[in-house]
Parts: sequence; C-alpha cells; structure tokens
Amino acid sequence: MKKIGILGSTGSIGTQTLAIVRNNEDLQVAALAAGSNVAKLEEQIREFSPAVAALWEEKAADELRIRVADTNTKVLCGMEGLLEIAVMEEIEVFVTAVVGMIGIKPTIAAIEAGKTIALANKETLVTAGHLIMPLAAQRKVPIFPVDSEHSAIFQSMHGENKERISKILLTASGGPFRGRSSADLKGVTVEDALNHPNWAMGRKITVDSATLVNKGLEVIEAKWLFGVEPEKIQVVVHPQSIIHSMVEYVDGGIMAQLGMPDMKLPIQYALFYPDRRPMEGKKVDFYTLSSLTFEKPDTETFKGLAMAYKAIELGGSMPTVYNAANERAVALFLDRRLRFLEIYDLIEGAMEQHKTVCNPSVEEILEAEAETYEYINAYGNAHRRD
Amino acid sequence: MKKIGILGSTGSIGTQTLAIVRNNEDLQVAALAAGSNVAKLEEQIREFSPAVAALWEEKAADELRIRVADTNTKVLCGMEGLLEIAVMEEIEVFVTAVVGMIGIKPTIAAIEAGKTIALANKETLVTAGHLIMPLAAQRKVPIFPVDSEHSAIFQSMHGENKERISKILLTASGGPFRGRSSADLKGVTVEDALNHPNWAMGRKITVDSATLVNKGLEVIEAKWLFGVEPEKIQVVVHPQSIIHSMVEYVDGGIMAQLGMPDMKLPIQYALFYPDRRPMEGKKVDFYTLSSLTFEKPDTETFKGLAMAYKAIELGGSMPTVYNAANERAVALFLDRRLRFLEIYDLIEGAMEQHKTVCNPSVEEILEAEAETYEYINAYGNAHRRD
Repeated sequence: MKKIGILGSTGSIGTQTLAIVRNNEDLQVAALAAGSNVAKLEEQIREFSPAVAALWEEKAADELRIRVADTNTKVLCGMEGLLEIAVMEEIEVFVTAVVGMIGIKPTIAAIEAGKTIALANKETLVTAGHLIMPLAAQRKVPIFPVDSEHSAIFQSMHGENKERISKILLTASGGPFRGRSSADLKGVTVEDALNHPNWAMGRKITVDSATLVNKGLEVIEAKWLFGVEPEKIQVVVHPQSIIHSMVEYVDGGIMAQLGMPDMKLPIQYALFYPDRRPMEGKKVDFYTLSSLTFEKPDTETFKGLAMAYKAIELGGSMPTVYNAANERAVALFLDRRLRFLEIYDLIEGAMEQHKTVCNPSVEEILEAEAETYEYINAYGNAHRRD
Repeated sequence: MKKIGILGSTGSIGTQTLAIVRNNEDLQVAALAAGSNVAKLEEQIREFSPAVAALWEEKAADELRIRVADTNTKVLCGMEGLLEIAVMEEIEVFVTAVVGMIGIKPTIAAIEAGKTIALANKETLVTAGHLIMPLAAQRKVPIFPVDSEHSAIFQSMHGENKERISKILLTASGGPFRGRSSADLKGVTVEDALNHPNWAMGRKITVDSATLVNKGLEVIEAKWLFGVEPEKIQVVVHPQSIIHSMVEYVDGGIMAQLGMPDMKLPIQYALFYPDRRPMEGKKVDFYTLSSLTFEKPDTETFKGLAMAYKAIELGGSMPTVYNAANERAVALFLDRRLRFLEIYDLIEGAMEQHKTVCNPSVEEILEAEAETYEYINAYGNAHRRD
C-alpha cells in the first residue's frame, strides 16, 4: 500500500490524482490539503478517509471541522497545517499540486523528511530550484514531474545517460492565439483566452498558455529539474499536443513521449514510476490522426517566452519576479482590469524595477514576491477600469 | 577496446559499420566476411587489419589470399570460414549484416560462444526465431537489432517493463508506390521500384520496401525479437520516415524514437548499448520539418504485409517460404523476368503449395528454402521473357 498526501486536492491536478487513487487499490490517501473549498474537501474526506485534512483559510477550516466531526479525519489549517502534513510519517509520496509559492515551504519540509515528491507546483522550482534540487540530491529524494511536458521529458530520459543529452525539445500547443499578430491581440477577451484548443485546465494556466508565459515557466522548471542549460532547451510549437516533449541525444537520436492530452497519465506515471499501470481512456489512433505539425514559436508577438529566458539569464530572484508579476497580471486580466497584451507590460515593468538578489533564501524569494505584488497592485489601482 | 566481427562487411550495413569503427577509437575489427567482392574486402583489410577475413566463394578467397599475402590477415572461405569467425575468442560483438539464410548457422554458433549479436540479418529471426531466441535467453546473450525500426522499438522499450506493452507501432515509409492502385502498378519498372523516397539501401530491400514485404518481414522479426504477438504489432505508414517506430504502453503513453533516416544511428546504438556516442550528421530540425503524416497501409494493393501475418499465423516453416519465395521473386523482377505484381503471385503460390513443418530444425528450414527455390525456379523458367 502506497500512502500519499495531496497539497491542492480540490484543484484540477488534485481531483485527477484522486481519480487515479480510485482506480488503483494499492494507493491510499493519508492527507488532503486545499485552499478554502469546504464542500469539495468534505466530499473528498468522506470518500477517501484521510487521517488528516487541511484548509489554508482558518475560517474555512473551522467550518470543515464541524462538518466532518463524525469522521476520523483531523482538520488542520494554514501553513502550520501544510507543514504538519508534509512530514507525516505514513506518507510516502507527497503530491504538490497547489498553485503559487505556498508550495515552497511544505515541499522543502517534505524533502527534508525524505518523501518522494510528485511535483505539479511550478513555482517551487521556478523560484527556488537552486535550493530544492541540491536539497533533494543531498537527501536522495526523487522529484517526479507531474505536468505533461516535463513528464514526457522525464520518460524520454528514462534509462538514458544525462551526459548524452544534446537538447530538450519542449513542445507547446501555441495556445488559442497561435498565428495571431499583436494587432489582432489588442482586443481579445477573457473568454477568447480561456478557449484552449487541446487542454482543459485551470483559468490561470490557460491564460499562461495563451501568453506563452506557461512555456517560459516550463523552460525555467526544466532547467532545474533536468540540470540542462537554457540554451539546450528549445521550445517547439506543436498545435496537436500529441507529442508531449522530446529529448535529443548526441547521436542525433530523439526520444519522445506521445499520448492523448490527459493529465492523468503523467500523474499516474509519477505515482508508480518506474511502473506503468493500465489506464482507461482514448488512445492515439495513427490511422485517423493524419498529421502532426511543428513551428517555431512567435516570440515577437508572444513575449512571455523571451522574458523567461531573460529571467533565467539574470537568475537569482528574477524568475520569482517574472512568475509573481505574471500571476497578478493574469488575475487582473481575468478580472477584466487589464488588456491581454498589458500582461507583458506588467511583467516587463516588474522585472525592470527589480534588483536581482543572487542565490536568494526562501525569505528573500518571498520578499521579492511581495515587492512584485506591491508593484502590480499599484499599477492595478492606477489603471482601474470601472 | 571492443572487438567486433562483421558478417557481410562489403554490403550497405557492413560498410556503414566500418564507418562507425573509423569514428570510435575504442572499436576494433577482429574479423570481416563477405560474399565475393575481392577488391572491396582487400581495401577493408588494408584499412582495418583484421586478424581474419573470409569470402563465401572459394575462388574469390583464393584470389584474396594472394592479394593480401603481405598482410597479417588470415583468409578463410565458405561456411567453415564464417563459423570459425563466429566463435573467435577475441570477438565481443558479432555484427550479422549478410543477406539471406547464410546468416543462421554463424549466428547460432556465435550465440553458443556467448557473443553479443548486432543483428541486421532479417532471415535469421524470420526463419529461425523459434530456435534463436530461446538459445540466446539460455546463453544470456543480448541480441541488439540493427535496422532502424527495430532499433527504435528497442530504444522505446529501454528501461520499460515488457509486460506493460500494449502495442508496437511499426512505421513504414510506404515505399515509392504509396497511394498507387493495383492498376497503376501493372507496368512499373525496376527503376521505378528502386526509387525509394527516403532511404538509400540495397536493391533487394528497396524492392521489398515497395511491395511492403520488407514490413512483413519486420513484423515477423519484431514478434521474435520482442516476444510480442502479431496482433499487437500495428504497421503505420509514415511517409517522412522521421519517427522510426513506437511502443504504446498500458497507460496510453507512447514512447517513440525519431531521427533523420540514417542507418549509422541504429548500428552505433547496437555497438555501444546502453551508451550513445556522438555522431556527426544532419539532425531533425522541427522548425523546418513542418509536418509528420500517418496512414493505414493499403494491404489490398500491397499484399506483402497481409501475407506475412498469414505466414506467422501458419507458423513453423511458413515464414521461411514467405521469405525465400520473395527473395527469388525479387531477383526475377530485378532481372526483368517478372512483373512487379507477380512477386505477390509467386509468394502466394509458394505458400499454397508448402506443407508447414512445425517447429523446424535448421536443416528443415533449409529444406523448406530449397523446396521454395525450386518452385520459383520452375516458375521462372516457365515464364522466361527474352
């Protein structure tokens, strides 16, 4: 029996992780943590009977505590709750599927406690890769990527010698605005941006996919996860999202992982690595697929990707600023207080005003985040659209 | 220093194997064997200084012996020569790149002597897979495939659990006549058939690619090499020959190996497995590649593939008949004594008149071959076109 803890259990990755638990009798949920969704977490507690559950918001935790008083689940709250879950003795795999920098401290605690990490939280490596990866190596803790691209890269590296990698080919769907010019993008709405061609995902990540910031974050994450320099990470637009990413080796051979766009595959792969478990679902049918296409990304129009390479180059706390500025800018966009292309202006502005801190500690990362939030809030307040 | 022996050194795979030796200082040639090409083998002896060389034809061997009398290379001939090379103590990897059933006995001898096999000779597994694979397992001898499709499958299985395979996706270029109807194929010439769109190969294999018999032989070979039942081997036409083959697993994930069409990659991979060595040459450029396409093979027109599945189903000596009939039919076609579509008639006729021998010995395999040759010769003589 493999016991897991899920940080972010009510979100898209969290609920899909639970779907996998449902289909695999040898998986058991020891702990669930979410933000504020009392009703959904209650439902999950009643189905999976974890020993511990946590909600980020104290009031919500209080309400949940009353609602599940008839169960054996202990309810915790806040960062304290997450940290308690991270080090729970019975947990073998810790799934970090929460969005945002909330994930950093619990991930560090779980690594220190020797837990295997199934990592879906991008911010952890984007902002603190320089702390996390050496720590994981020191504690001999494996970090298995959960998103489809990094899982594909990981699968394409399985059994291979890392020294023989010549290039990582990170695929990108190109998002709903692929092929459009800056002029075309001036008037796009929230609804346009949320209309992703292949993947059903959360709202924030769907906008990130439209701006290519998501791909930028993935480049930074890949750098840390696989120890490959950014100049060896090439983004390839592949609109059908069938090839989930590839690795080229020094002999010119390329290994690739393909599949239907379904997050359950990388989640399950991370939970059972190196085994593969049977999974229901549509399979790729090459007799009807007809064609897979590839393009160079348009980084002039979709500046999010170029800015990510800039952020890695500057290093230190700059990727944190890139990420935090984007996070808040997207929130403003979803709130209809910002135009789509202004997301880039805000990220650029935040990066320009930030003085890079080299090799930042967790506290310094959180400071850079707070400073960036302040910058974006000031901008948001100044440009309120009523 | 890794010492290798090459059976079929003057052919396409043989010369490319020597090109790899030229680029890797830790490879050394201990023995070379060829059919009758004295001049080329002499050249190879002078460049690679093997301890032993062999020619199939006695007269040619006598001539070679005189021509290389000033070297330290010992010259052998016939099956005796091949068998002596197969068991040479200093040889670690035995590359079987000869065409035809000549390869079977030396391969068996090499496996019995504990040599690693780099297998490019299709006939060995097609006709004697039921003998070779159990023997290799018993002697714990690895058999590394050298052609591009089987190498791609092998690479896509590296580090994976074979029990988790749901399907092998064997790609096929479709050959020069892809998309043509039987009516279109009535008048095609030898030149038309030799005009392969992607691969520069020997004449016989190029015709086999046009008839899809090559793919049929590969299905039979894959069955033995990977222990997968034929119904789990799906042929996918992929005209660009960039994806060299794929393996689908029970979770719906597909691993694939891609690369430019270049036989040196699978040869080198077999020689250094599991390592990958740097190799010069054009790499796949996804920014200019634009599109990869896939189709169902037209087995109504290109009957060679369906006949292969029939031959596996009947089993025993039937794949030998399929192979031998094709070999001679192609020779007649290249000799302009047979029309293209008549190749299928001859294979079908030979298979129909043959009574399957179950679990045939090497002698029974050779008998089935001889019987098939006789059948085809009789046909060839009856239909001589002067």
